[in-house]
Amino acid sequence: MNITTKIARIETGDAYPTRLPGAERTIERQDPVLWSDWTPAAPLSQEAAAQYRDKGYLVAKDLFSKSEIRRLIEAGAALRRNGAEIRGEDLVTEPGSDEVRTVFRLDEHSELFRRLAHDRRLAGIAEFLLNDRVYLHQSRLNYKPGFTGKEFYWHSDFETWHAEDGMPRMRAVSASILLTDNSELNGPLMLVPGSHKSFVACAGETPARNHESSLKKQVIGVPQPETIARMVEQLGLDVATGPAGTVVFFECNTLHGSNGNITPFPRSNAFFVYNALSNRLVAPFAAKAPRPAFLANREQPEAIEPVEGEITL
Amino acid sequence: MNITTKIARIETGDAYPTRLPGAERTIERQDPVLWSDWTPAAPLSQEAAAQYRDKGYLVAKDLFSKSEIRRLIEAGAALRRNGAEIRGEDLVTEPGSDEVRTVFRLDEHSELFRRLAHDRRLAGIAEFLLNDRVYLHQSRLNYKPGFTGKEFYWHSDFETWHAEDGMPRMRAVSASILLTDNSELNGPLMLVPGSHKSFVACAGETPARNHESSLKKQVIGVPQPETIARMVEQLGLDVATGPAGTVVFFECNTLHGSNGNITPFPRSNAFFVYNALSNRLVAPFAAKAPRPAFLANREQPEAIEPVEGEITL
Repeated sequence: MNITTKIARIETGDAYPTRLPGAERTIERQDPVLWSDWTPAAPLSQEAAAQYRDKGYLVAKDLFSKSEIRRLIEAGAALRRNGAEIRGEDLVTEPGSDEVRTVFRLDEHSELFRRLAHDRRLAGIAEFLLNDRVYLHQSRLNYKPGFTGKEFYWHSDFETWHAEDGMPRMRAVSASILLTDNSELNGPLMLVPGSHKSFVACAGETPARNHESSLKKQVIGVPQPETIARMVEQLGLDVATGPAGTVVFFECNTLHGSNGNITPFPRSNAFFVYNALSNRLVAPFAAKAPRPAFLANREQPEAIEPVEGEITL
Repeated sequence: MNITTKIARIETGDAYPTRLPGAERTIERQDPVLWSDWTPAAPLSQEAAAQYRDKGYLVAKDLFSKSEIRRLIEAGAALRRNGAEIRGEDLVTEPGSDEVRTVFRLDEHSELFRRLAHDRRLAGIAEFLLNDRVYLHQSRLNYKPGFTGKEFYWHSDFETWHAEDGMPRMRAVSASILLTDNSELNGPLMLVPGSHKSFVACAGETPARNHESSLKKQVIGVPQPETIARMVEQLGLDVATGPAGTVVFFECNTLHGSNGNITPFPRSNAFFVYNALSNRLVAPFAAKAPRPAFLANREQPEAIEPVEGEITL
């Protein structure tokens, strides 16, 4: 069965009911992972495409030049220094200080990061993986300081995006561009390879304004510990490490999380979520009201025209 | 200058003033690290002894047989199951449940772990490193569950043992016997190689009953973040990983800590602190009252007679 036939079979309605009144359930993924058939014209190797399909993620270490990476690191630091100029809704600061932790709608606050999000090396790969034109569902700059970096518990992004944002299908991919070196010890992204092939429909109704607490500590919409333990036992545990400039593409339903970090080494990344234009948001599937626009772009999404060449702005 | 001459030079009095009213200060270590001169009769290789001297720790992966390790793991699990039989003072349980997290005075609660503490492969090496007969300053079984394991911030054990227990000199060594596999990802022991050669005299007076909070989160007696960052920049960062059965010997003044752990893999170890008999505790150097006996053995310490042969109890 080729991809086109598969897509044609997809029904309308809620393919992934979640936030269930009863117990958690694990169901099979209803969507392709790799939406395109690979050809030699694809923007990544056949091996890389197969790895993404089988594991649910891909780590690319040489997409950008040293000088491009240097520019991005500097732009990230400048954005954090000038946090006061960014509208409050898009900014998360450290409690009790002005230290910038997150800048949402990153592509609107920095020409350089906007250029990065539109780069063919990211957006072109996303188009191939999703077999569609793409737009940014969410974009952010993350900065976790050394010494006090907090953990981020296991979750599938898609579960939240489906339940609270109304993303219909698993046809989105995140790209995390590391702006610091990441070792096993400074709270890197951990992933469960193959976890994207199952959907864990979580138990418990979504509270109102859930995102206000879930961005700090997610309680609703995460699998039970026994479920995570079983998945890790069956599938293993992997970690995305690499020098600054490394890009991690991960499928929207891949189970991931990160440990806290007491090392002196901070962790920063630019994070772009590419969604297929045909997979635009509808009403939330399991929440009374959609999350705000800085978390989920639902107004007239602009399809990206991938841009070629060195990022020089 | 050989070791004996060095020791003769050591003066009495407080060699390591700490909990200072003013700012933190870093001073040079006043004591040898390796108190014995190495000879072919030593219980560890010349390379291992040199590594301990230069880095402040040593990771040994093949001291115990598979069946000994299995027995120790079983004995640890049995102790945790039977927590109710252990006197309250020696037991730390999870808040809101009976789950055992720590058993202090481990050598008094388990014949097998007492036998382990007296084993020549541990106590004999401690005798050599410290060039003296040794006794147990502290012993404990630690268990950190998966998913919710908390971090343990950077500290030198000696700073606390000197300030709050009255340990005069840097003539003690800890042995951590891993009872679970430890990877980089489940909150392993991180160490700063060479940090044992400096003493960070910390700022701030010791509050009364400080140990009641410092066992959970140490605030007094830890170096400032800038100091830790400088040490890691100059000296690097290392991690003690290995399968269950691995033993980490680390010098009492080596800066160490561990990250939290959201993986499903728990972390457990038996922890013995060997102190030189000549380095017995006196009055605390920077606290009004000494810590309780389960943390610091100050009554008639019993010198260990190292025991040969397989641990079979």
